[in-house]
Amino acid sequence: MAVTEKLISIPRSDAPDQPEATSELAKLYEEFEHERLIPLWTEIGNLMPARPQSAAVPHVWRWRDSLLPMARKAGELVPVGRGGERRAIALANPGLGGAPFATPTLWAAIQYLNPHEDAPVHRHTQNAFRFVVEGEGVWTVVNGDPVAMRRGDFLPQAGWNWHGHHNVSDRPMAWIDGLDIPFQQYAGSTFFEFGPDEVPTREAPELSRSERLWAHPGLRPLTQLQPAPATPLLAYRWEHTDRALKEQLALESEGYAATVERGHAAVRYVNPATGGDIMPTLRTEFHRLTPGTQTARRREVGSSVFQIFDGTGEVSVGDRTWIVDHGDLFVVPSWQPLAVATETGIDLFRFSDAPVLERLHQDRVEIEEVR
Amino acid sequence: MAVTEKLISIPRSDAPDQPEATSELAKLYEEFEHERLIPLWTEIGNLMPARPQSAAVPHVWRWRDSLLPMARKAGELVPVGRGGERRAIALANPGLGGAPFATPTLWAAIQYLNPHEDAPVHRHTQNAFRFVVEGEGVWTVVNGDPVAMRRGDFLPQAGWNWHGHHNVSDRPMAWIDGLDIPFQQYAGSTFFEFGPDEVPTREAPELSRSERLWAHPGLRPLTQLQPAPATPLLAYRWEHTDRALKEQLALESEGYAATVERGHAAVRYVNPATGGDIMPTLRTEFHRLTPGTQTARRREVGSSVFQIFDGTGEVSVGDRTWIVDHGDLFVVPSWQPLAVATETGIDLFRFSDAPVLERLHQDRVEIEEVR
Amino acid sequence: MAVTEKLISIPRSDAPDQPEATSELAKLYEEFEHERLIPLWTEIGNLMPARPQSAAVPHVWRWRDSLLPMARKAGELVPVGRGGERRAIALANPGLGGAPFATPTLWAAIQYLNPHEDAPVHRHTQNAFRFVVEGEGVWTVVNGDPVAMRRGDFLPQAGWNWHGHHNVSDRPMAWIDGLDIPFQQYAGSTFFEFGPDEVPTREAPELSRSERLWAHPGLRPLTQLQPAPATPLLAYRWEHTDRALKEQLALESEGYAATVERGHAAVRYVNPATGGDIMPTLRTEFHRLTPGTQTARRREVGSSVFQIFDGTGEVSVGDRTWIVDHGDLFVVPSWQPLAVATETGIDLFRFSDAPVLERLHQDRVEIEEVR
Amino acid sequence: MAVTEKLISIPRSDAPDQPEATSELAKLYEEFEHERLIPLWTEIGNLMPARPQSAAVPHVWRWRDSLLPMARKAGELVPVGRGGERRAIALANPGLGGAPFATPTLWAAIQYLNPHEDAPVHRHTQNAFRFVVEGEGVWTVVNGDPVAMRRGDFLPQAGWNWHGHHNVSDRPMAWIDGLDIPFQQYAGSTFFEFGPDEVPTREAPELSRSERLWAHPGLRPLTQLQPAPATPLLAYRWEHTDRALKEQLALESEGYAATVERGHAAVRYVNPATGGDIMPTLRTEFHRLTPGTQTARRREVGSSVFQIFDGTGEVSVGDRTWIVDHGDLFVVPSWQPLAVATETGIDLFRFSDAPVLERLHQDRVEIEEVR
Repeated sequence: MAVTEKLISIPRSDAPDQPEATSELAKLYEEFEHERLIPLWTEIGNLMPARPQSAAVPHVWRWRDSLLPMARKAGELVPVGRGGERRAIALANPGLGGAPFATPTLWAAIQYLNPHEDAPVHRHTQNAFRFVVEGEGVWTVVNGDPVAMRRGDFLPQAGWNWHGHHNVSDRPMAWIDGLDIPFQQYAGSTFFEFGPDEVPTREAPELSRSERLWAHPGLRPLTQLQPAPATPLLAYRWEHTDRALKEQLALESEGYAATVERGHAAVRYVNPATGGDIMPTLRTEFHRLTPGTQTARRREVGSSVFQIFDGTGEVSVGDRTWIVDHGDLFVVPSWQPLAVATETGIDLFRFSDAPVLERLHQDRVEIEEVR
Repeated sequence: MAVTEKLISIPRSDAPDQPEATSELAKLYEEFEHERLIPLWTEIGNLMPARPQSAAVPHVWRWRDSLLPMARKAGELVPVGRGGERRAIALANPGLGGAPFATPTLWAAIQYLNPHEDAPVHRHTQNAFRFVVEGEGVWTVVNGDPVAMRRGDFLPQAGWNWHGHHNVSDRPMAWIDGLDIPFQQYAGSTFFEFGPDEVPTREAPELSRSERLWAHPGLRPLTQLQPAPATPLLAYRWEHTDRALKEQLALESEGYAATVERGHAAVRYVNPATGGDIMPTLRTEFHRLTPGTQTARRREVGSSVFQIFDGTGEVSVGDRTWIVDHGDLFVVPSWQPLAVATETGIDLFRFSDAPVLERLHQDRVEIEEVR
Repeated sequence: MAVTEKLISIPRSDAPDQPEATSELAKLYEEFEHERLIPLWTEIGNLMPARPQSAAVPHVWRWRDSLLPMARKAGELVPVGRGGERRAIALANPGLGGAPFATPTLWAAIQYLNPHEDAPVHRHTQNAFRFVVEGEGVWTVVNGDPVAMRRGDFLPQAGWNWHGHHNVSDRPMAWIDGLDIPFQQYAGSTFFEFGPDEVPTREAPELSRSERLWAHPGLRPLTQLQPAPATPLLAYRWEHTDRALKEQLALESEGYAATVERGHAAVRYVNPATGGDIMPTLRTEFHRLTPGTQTARRREVGSSVFQIFDGTGEVSVGDRTWIVDHGDLFVVPSWQPLAVATETGIDLFRFSDAPVLERLHQDRVEIEEVR
Repeated sequence: MAVTEKLISIPRSDAPDQPEATSELAKLYEEFEHERLIPLWTEIGNLMPARPQSAAVPHVWRWRDSLLPMARKAGELVPVGRGGERRAIALANPGLGGAPFATPTLWAAIQYLNPHEDAPVHRHTQNAFRFVVEGEGVWTVVNGDPVAMRRGDFLPQAGWNWHGHHNVSDRPMAWIDGLDIPFQQYAGSTFFEFGPDEVPTREAPELSRSERLWAHPGLRPLTQLQPAPATPLLAYRWEHTDRALKEQLALESEGYAATVERGHAAVRYVNPATGGDIMPTLRTEFHRLTPGTQTARRREVGSSVFQIFDGTGEVSVGDRTWIVDHGDLFVVPSWQPLAVATETGIDLFRFSDAPVLERLHQDRVEIEEVR
């Protein structure tokens, strides 16, 4: 485990306001090093900066010209099976020194499954979800419940549930996976177990059993009253998301307060048993901007990954600006301001570590009004 | 910020169950690297191990022969003032690649203040506390409320409160500080502000105003009913801790269930406004083992730092075993089993990141019965 | 206010285990009465019985032959307007001494509105809802949001919201109202304010604005994140309820655990912002029994009112048994056992005071297995 | 059970805004009565008043000249034992039609135990407490834990715990009991079981085991981490209460905000495991006014009972005003304004049903500034 090798070189005698560099001090510093001690006064600028200094940097990954073709190529060269477990290719933030992490807390990947392939069954403490930017044909089987994956669907899958995927169609399928792998590696909380090599059922129903129990607005099955730290609903269908966003924009046009800001509709995917985030460590949302919309600049403590689902726009994160298109993914590190503008309209899927920050009372938000 | 430089070298072609190493595959891996992508199938062993693999290692730091004399030496060579802010020397876990962190989430240090010195006023989002293993004479002033620090006292100090220290006595004083610096650096949630160079009051009362309001068992001031995410009580006095432990052991000897296990009394320091942990990210406890006691081996998800307050014992963490004495500090990484045995009796102060794990539903405990 | 006149005649010298009836004792009892004092030893059987002794009794009210024709007659003779406020006729439990209460905590009534009539706008702290056993044509306007009322719909309406109704159709309409009037009268928590005599809008949209914002399964508008003690969703439509019940029964027939007991599907109407009860004092549910189903006998602390929505069955409450049909209402007093059997299948709407009991930790349930 | 006999005489044709009194209407009203139906339009003034109209009235009971001598007399004439269970004499609010209730939700009584008497062991779902206005010598034994009762002590005792009392001294002792008997009778949630005729232990320790475990400020035993809906601490000692109040007043005199209003210190007795009310249905507080203090007029939804512990004052509740002295008890019905003035200083114990109102979101407070 070389994960945190050489984090900080010490002592950093070039820090400001340092004691006089005498030979006695040098000797003390040597003793510190020998005893595995590091003074605060040389490191405080790194450890306690005036505002968050995330190691992660703003970055974009391109879907059509990069992620998707490489996943296809991996589909030719790399089998899916026991050991490797998943044909998933993760975003590695350039600021994170080579770690396969989109942000310090979030892992994001494109996953690719060839026709009639299985991804074997396993379970892990990491919280996970899938979001489908295009295509269909794969069912993910969670604790024996087969869940169709189709364009626009959001499929949460909380830690420690058995799951595998199978592609029942004659076409390959790609989607994105989001997990809290970095957070759990950091926290030292990861457990993992192998299940069968093949999914336990070949059924491919329109609706999962979880949806048949839970996807009725405001209705809770009387058999499902126990507390639920993560969502029991295994699929949030595009038709519902799309309709919710359309209604917000229609209400706005009728003169009612229903949007985050003008032209900006948004929903959070929530646990129907609590109304809160779908999982203890992950927040997921879907945002729609109408043509001509420009959002306020906004910064938050905590990091996010966005994927463009539809449309195009101009995204600015900190001092970076990109034109983004269908399928592109970009990251917003902690406290970096984000603004989005669109001529054509744009739909964005977002996931973040916000529940971690909120549950630990570390959340902050700053919004700069549009000029 | 080089904090996470070179976390993982990729791709690791020596991982098990890898695809055939063709030139085509090598070319794909090169493209991955160029596009800032990292496959899961080469890294899954690191990312999703069967059980927690903390980078931190079990380690002990010695008080009498190492920490205290070095702090004294720093007292001669290093001034306390604006910029460096505190004469604090932190434990650097040997597994954490040179970072000044006791564990991935916890920072622990010895702090040293000369007679009549001030540590300047500042505030930060990091949650902090002090624990006094010996000595007295310093008052920490929190939002203008002077809080005496004396042997055995625990002094929590939640994030974003103004605080400075002053030594009113003619003798130096040393104590330990515990903070969630690593966690907040990791989460990207750190804010910091400078206050005055000197503490706002020279008063040195026996009891802080916070204690006069809050340190009455089961009584809440009617002016203090608002929700409190962190404890409003700024001092937990030794006399109360000692008495609570004595009563548990007396009850045990009278035949009542009051101890964690035979000969092992323990209290958690809690927020009197909630009964829960004193801060959102930190748990603190005090444990007492009577002479001849041997604890069960116990492992937990999450990491801890212990300080021996009194007595001696034999501590085993994972495959390490040490004889520990007054003032020594040792760390227990996530999922490493801990056992303590004592001939003479031993008193231990403990702090951990348990609230982080519990609030995010990642906590697990395994206890092995004493043979 | 004669509400609690003559609750208990005192002293009850016929109670068991009483002191010897001397003249001295008689004199003491006279003094008690003069000083407004009542001994416990004469009353303890009433005050602290071995199990709940509700004053309410099991009772049924008939829809077709009694409630509906009388409401129609009231529609001819009694205008709706300021002062009387509503043409509502309440169930008066025969055990409650003439109070217009279905149970000690619950008020239930049939309400009737003639074609093109308005029920004037007011607001009150009492929590309320409507349930539509048949018909359509009325819109209830809640804080300016017009909400259609149609067969099978459940329409919650939490305390202190402005509301009025208007019948836009050429036909009269009847429905049931449920409120916590008795509880709030008991608790001394009732406030009431008059609004305009007419509803503020004549719009009659298919969907209320609240539904357009909130009735999307698992999706929460980003503008609606504030805590919500009562449900913000103003209509729970029959199509959703019916589908949820059908799915539970289909899952049961496919071999999955989805029903309360065999042949018995049930949903609870919940606040989508919390997953909990729609209001702090009221629980509402819908139950469906398939043909040939017989429930277990079940008793609960707390009282309920049921309305038969569809089908027929035999209901047993305590020592009473009735054949019930469409629209009939019956009450289940606290701790009286309830069982339902049906040859044809039966759909039941239920409301109760369960949240009061649960939030105050007074809830208990006892289930007797079906023989 | 005649508990709610003759609550409301119906129909009340003298209500305002009534339909024309035709013979047809009279016939309809007859049919209503026959069918156990009551119109809203005749009753709405009673059921939905503009503000709370409690049936309870302000009232005072005198300790020295009434309660205590009568309790002594009962001590001569009435034995304590199985059946009657307690020699307790309850306050019967004159507005509550003869019920032995201080307010609609609260039962309050003086209890009296002769030298060396036992009050037999039982348990009930009703939440209870004792408060000792004078004297000592009795131990209440709760689940086998003997708890001393001494002047100024508050002794909570949550529902469904076994308890009995015994007087170990050669002198009689009187104290007050407070219970939620009326609320639980109303809610239909009362269960009761007999235990042994004598208390299980004759021990009379200075401190109960519950205090030895729990009465350490901010310290929670590690064996006591399970959720606790009611307080596990069985005694709140006078020395702590007195000191907390003195400190608040001292802080006030030093210029810090620590009192409810000038000269008015107050603490709430809380569950140390939650920081919230000691029981789900009861709130208890202690208030101290310094000489010359006059409180603001304040009204709250929910009812209270006060006992004067020490000093004298002038109490005004609604349109009633009394001079009160040591031991006197008075009631404040819901929404009746309360003000207290004192020349000599006054100490007041208070209990109320506030948790019921707050947990059900029915609480309201209105404060009128002192002129």
